[in-house]
Amino acid sequence: MEKLAEQEHPVKAFGWAATDSSGILSPFNFSRRATGEKDVSFKVLYCGICHSDLHMVKNEWGNTTYPIVPGHEIAGIVTEVGSKVQKFKVGDRVGVGCLVGSCHSCENCSNNLENYCLKKKFTYGSKSYDGTTTYGGYSDIMVADEHFVIRIPDNIPLEVAAPLLCAGITVYSPMRYYGLDKPGLNVGVVGLGGLGHVAVKFLKSLGAKVTVISTSPNKMKEATENLGADSFLVSRDQDQMQAAMGTMDGIIDTVSAVHPILSLVGLLKAHGKLVMIGMPEKPLELSVIPLVIGRKTLAGSMIGGIKETQEMIDFSAEHKITPDIEVIPIDYVNTAMDRLHKGDVKYRFVIDIGNTIKSSS
Amino acid sequence: MEKLAEQEHPVKAFGWAATDSSGILSPFNFSRRATGEKDVSFKVLYCGICHSDLHMVKNEWGNTTYPIVPGHEIAGIVTEVGSKVQKFKVGDRVGVGCLVGSCHSCENCSNNLENYCLKKKFTYGSKSYDGTTTYGGYSDIMVADEHFVIRIPDNIPLEVAAPLLCAGITVYSPMRYYGLDKPGLNVGVVGLGGLGHVAVKFLKSLGAKVTVISTSPNKMKEATENLGADSFLVSRDQDQMQAAMGTMDGIIDTVSAVHPILSLVGLLKAHGKLVMIGMPEKPLELSVIPLVIGRKTLAGSMIGGIKETQEMIDFSAEHKITPDIEVIPIDYVNTAMDRLHKGDVKYRFVIDIGNTIKSSS
Repeated sequence: MEKLAEQEHPVKAFGWAATDSSGILSPFNFSRRATGEKDVSFKVLYCGICHSDLHMVKNEWGNTTYPIVPGHEIAGIVTEVGSKVQKFKVGDRVGVGCLVGSCHSCENCSNNLENYCLKKKFTYGSKSYDGTTTYGGYSDIMVADEHFVIRIPDNIPLEVAAPLLCAGITVYSPMRYYGLDKPGLNVGVVGLGGLGHVAVKFLKSLGAKVTVISTSPNKMKEATENLGADSFLVSRDQDQMQAAMGTMDGIIDTVSAVHPILSLVGLLKAHGKLVMIGMPEKPLELSVIPLVIGRKTLAGSMIGGIKETQEMIDFSAEHKITPDIEVIPIDYVNTAMDRLHKGDVKYRFVIDIGNTIKSSS
Repeated sequence: MEKLAEQEHPVKAFGWAATDSSGILSPFNFSRRATGEKDVSFKVLYCGICHSDLHMVKNEWGNTTYPIVPGHEIAGIVTEVGSKVQKFKVGDRVGVGCLVGSCHSCENCSNNLENYCLKKKFTYGSKSYDGTTTYGGYSDIMVADEHFVIRIPDNIPLEVAAPLLCAGITVYSPMRYYGLDKPGLNVGVVGLGGLGHVAVKFLKSLGAKVTVISTSPNKMKEATENLGADSFLVSRDQDQMQAAMGTMDGIIDTVSAVHPILSLVGLLKAHGKLVMIGMPEKPLELSVIPLVIGRKTLAGSMIGGIKETQEMIDFSAEHKITPDIEVIPIDYVNTAMDRLHKGDVKYRFVIDIGNTIKSSS
């Protein structure tokens, strides 16, 4: 199978892949397509480690095929563009997020919502239109249709831009869609990880009063002093939760573990919105009564469209919103995955691909 | 206790009340306040029987105090107005729905959303601001602050106007708020009862393509031929449900019994909205994953504000939308309650109060 990956395309590529559900990553030779007429090829310099990468390498969602090269927070420098490419040239600072393909003809694609296209192709682990598997950004080079390539503004270092391409857009898009982007709103953020800490920064920048809601009291100082949250609620403290009932216009819930949401619905004012961006594997229990009595909304959101991703990163550049990252060499990636599993990272690992990845062949 | 009810106010009133959780209604002498300066008094001619009335007389929500005079779909003719009343005069055709009071100063009241005011007073079974209990429309006379009185347009008979004051506004308000009022949308209606059948009529009038979703295959002919629905889905037929996956922009779910909602979420397109207006007593199980993947919404809605109730009834008059009713005499009310419990009514009982209620004193 590795042999096939190495031979199926003309351009040699090298990355780190997991080959079974242990999830352990190791050096992997594969190949990428030649730069097509609408393609942008680029040298990968940095790639963020998203929690999805961990789920996928361990096959925790049950849909992984091996070998898998993860990574969908990819930033680098353009090395070649196809003859019909209009937006990019060699030397440009670019990135690719979660998506590398969509049908371009459905209602969602027409509305710049490629992320909801039923035929979308994910950056890694998808069957591409030519039948080959897509490989992600834990690798030396990348090629993608220019439609899915994001321009990274000059004033954002590539390593901090990378996590915006998944974590950033995932929290930004629901703020816009569900109207949580109005100054003066009271908005909660559940979970203070890779997604949550960027959500706090965006919301503050949009003028919200932000409350971080967490199971860990020891995150309070970090949330209020370092990230600028206005207040902090310990979700297991019933007195604190009771006192905050009916105070929030919206909540962005970033937690993927199964967790109680009825108390979060209780924190909302009438007409408030609880937006889930994590995906707990098991069903949650929910009473409909508070939704009816308070005209409240429970809703979801998944990443964002390409146009909005560009808007988000331009907004980040303008407002100087950058994720807090820990840059690591590629050979630290398995340790980083272990630490991510334990929640031991503030707040995003970013792999220094450019300086540390080396083909073994 | 009945003595108290009869003496606490200066104006003698007569109705039918339940005195215990058997829910059986019987004649009941009580009293109402004199017409205050902002009050409208009216002779009750018709009162609809809402499913809430059945829940309340049997104390199924656990908050009933006896004796209780139900009825919040009340229509009649003005007999007296207070000195400061501006909108109504003697002889006007008027109605009162679910609400007779609110604080008039909170954010919801300021936005014409008295129905979400935390200090709202229900038409029956609430403690009013003077400490006395509110009594509903299964009675000969009514008095209410003009703010909560609805003008009934001349071209709607009072008996068909009555159910619009609860059933009508309860389905109309979420169509407007959740954007299901755009021509050409595919909208589902779950449950074909007092609420559901009016929902079909409103949606058709707004230009939607309407699918009735029901557990009862024998309602198909009624839904499509008599009510004008475009199609019909038997919710227990997995093949039918599977074929309809991802086709609806929104669903109005009128069912109060505990029922599965995951399959309803599956019927929605991306960005679709499932709006609950019934209140199942027990929590429902819901997987968050389809909400996230399809940016779908589960939400609730409860009746509507007074301004919107007037708008709804004016819209009904203009578009000739009238509920299908069965008019009954007051002494049939206990039989009607039994039949309602069995779902044996097309689609709303309306009590002919004016011609059949007679004081026994």
